[in-house]
Amino acid sequence: MRKIIIKSQFTSKNYELRNKIATMVAGKNTYRSEIKNKILPDLPKSLAVIGSGVIAIELAQAMHRLGVKTTIFARSRKVGTLTSPNLQLLAQKELQTELDIKFEVLPKTVANTQAGVEITYEENGAELTLITDYLLTATGRDSNLQNLKLENINKAFTDLKKLPVDPQTKQLMHYPIFIVGDAKTATPIQHEAAHEGKFAIHNALNYPKVKSLKTLPPLGIVFSSPEMATIGQSFKDLKNNNIEFVTGFVSYEKQGRALVLGKNKGAAEIYVDKMSRKVLGSELFIESAEHLAHLLAWMISEQLTVDDALTKPFYHPTLEEGLRTALKHARRQLNPI
Amino acid sequence: MRKIIIKSQFTSKNYELRNKIATMVAGKNTYRSEIKNKILPDLPKSLAVIGSGVIAIELAQAMHRLGVKTTIFARSRKVGTLTSPNLQLLAQKELQTELDIKFEVLPKTVANTQAGVEITYEENGAELTLITDYLLTATGRDSNLQNLKLENINKAFTDLKKLPVDPQTKQLMHYPIFIVGDAKTATPIQHEAAHEGKFAIHNALNYPKVKSLKTLPPLGIVFSSPEMATIGQSFKDLKNNNIEFVTGFVSYEKQGRALVLGKNKGAAEIYVDKMSRKVLGSELFIESAEHLAHLLAWMISEQLTVDDALTKPFYHPTLEEGLRTALKHARRQLNPI
Repeated sequence: MRKIIIKSQFTSKNYELRNKIATMVAGKNTYRSEIKNKILPDLPKSLAVIGSGVIAIELAQAMHRLGVKTTIFARSRKVGTLTSPNLQLLAQKELQTELDIKFEVLPKTVANTQAGVEITYEENGAELTLITDYLLTATGRDSNLQNLKLENINKAFTDLKKLPVDPQTKQLMHYPIFIVGDAKTATPIQHEAAHEGKFAIHNALNYPKVKSLKTLPPLGIVFSSPEMATIGQSFKDLKNNNIEFVTGFVSYEKQGRALVLGKNKGAAEIYVDKMSRKVLGSELFIESAEHLAHLLAWMISEQLTVDDALTKPFYHPTLEEGLRTALKHARRQLNPI
Repeated sequence: MRKIIIKSQFTSKNYELRNKIATMVAGKNTYRSEIKNKILPDLPKSLAVIGSGVIAIELAQAMHRLGVKTTIFARSRKVGTLTSPNLQLLAQKELQTELDIKFEVLPKTVANTQAGVEITYEENGAELTLITDYLLTATGRDSNLQNLKLENINKAFTDLKKLPVDPQTKQLMHYPIFIVGDAKTATPIQHEAAHEGKFAIHNALNYPKVKSLKTLPPLGIVFSSPEMATIGQSFKDLKNNNIEFVTGFVSYEKQGRALVLGKNKGAAEIYVDKMSRKVLGSELFIESAEHLAHLLAWMISEQLTVDDALTKPFYHPTLEEGLRTALKHARRQLNPI
């Protein structure tokens, strides 16, 4: 039987693959042969994807654009990482125009059959069956922490979700143990893991002198098309923390440069503190979000206000000019200085 | 006779055209029909371009990629805006692999003939003739300032190159006259002109209370492929001002993300002050330089040191990671803190 079930796991090999496929979303076929040779015997004719998070959306869109008939089963309606209700809705609508996403529908049964992967599911009250060449489950993954049997050190470590890890030092209680990166995190992101790992080694070598690690401003990117990004405090963070903020909004549907590029889709939001006028966070669903996300993340880490940001140069014609529109929109909602 | 000579002038109409064509360098044909209808009766079969500055390179490369047989005559070997000898050489070599650039060769005669634009020139000692459908001269332009007859106000204004304009206020001597933007500048860039214009109006309305305008960190972008950018103090500025600096260099030929995109060309340089460790400037000849240029310009305007910059998040896998490589290369050349 040549039908297999791929489980989304970040081995270094398929992490690399993810990046290659994701960057292929732009439509380039450079790595098509590489995927074909290294990972799959051939590109499948059809693929079912379970999940609508980062990996699911990136790979589903890439495979779809490579000509694979792709069907996505999603537990909720949420796509990718955006927490802004506005941008979520926009992203759901936009991605649905291209991809076959079954929102709030999960497979009931999955079986390997002679014909392929047989998936049964319920949609609009009807029992349906889908047969695809492959199934990709991209519904998160388990930390290997459980294999370490930490509970043998201390009974308090039985529930891995409640491990007492210091968020500043990543030290496990008073033990000479540091837990960093994807082993235990809400943000499984490579550059944060690398940063934490470096600090943990420093702390391990200087033990018991343990320094706090300098935390990075949050920066998450989804290599979909358009790209998504969350920078600094997300819309949800701000709401959960009852922070008083205004939202500077800009649609990219008529943004000058986006129009010229033929990539005039999506929108951006920038969140500004009502009192301090500091830029607190941003969410993007636009072309080249990865670049604008760095600009915003660095600006946020420098604690810039909306007024500071508006004194910066915005070259014409660029996508960055859209951020200026959003910053001005935010400023108009604040009290005049 | 349908042969005409186009002179590069920034009317608002052909400024827009420049941007559209320049962004087309990526290979998109979206605006092909627009150019055809609005500006030229048809895309020519052949085009000669005089000049190798911003406009010349952007348009020549765009036309070449649209299938127009394009020949560039350049007074010097300099292409675009890069002042770093290293990056200039790289850009010359790279652009020459694609474009027919005759360095240090200018037309001796140009004539409209029945067959087309007849251009004679000397190359390697031989007298040669080229016939093209069109000729584009992109060798700079004259300011309309000369039409104002400023010398009637004050004899000191006869030589427009030596006009006593205050660089901080843009005021002409003690007169209630402000000269901004492309009317008199070494950097004819839209966002700087807009910025200066706004301040000049403020000063005109509040005259004789004249405020200094907040100068923007220099930021120039060439929409070639790869793109060029100069940010902050250029290599040449730093040399001319005898500033002691180190150069952080990174080649993008093996940069991870650039490789995956199939855009692994060019290089970047970041200039760091030897004493203060501040990032002073940068020159780029890489894919998406326009975005990285904003990041660098904003960082420079915040007076960040190389050490500050290296504490910022660099998402993986992105082109921004290349800048980190350059920053680290610069830091290795400085004294340890």
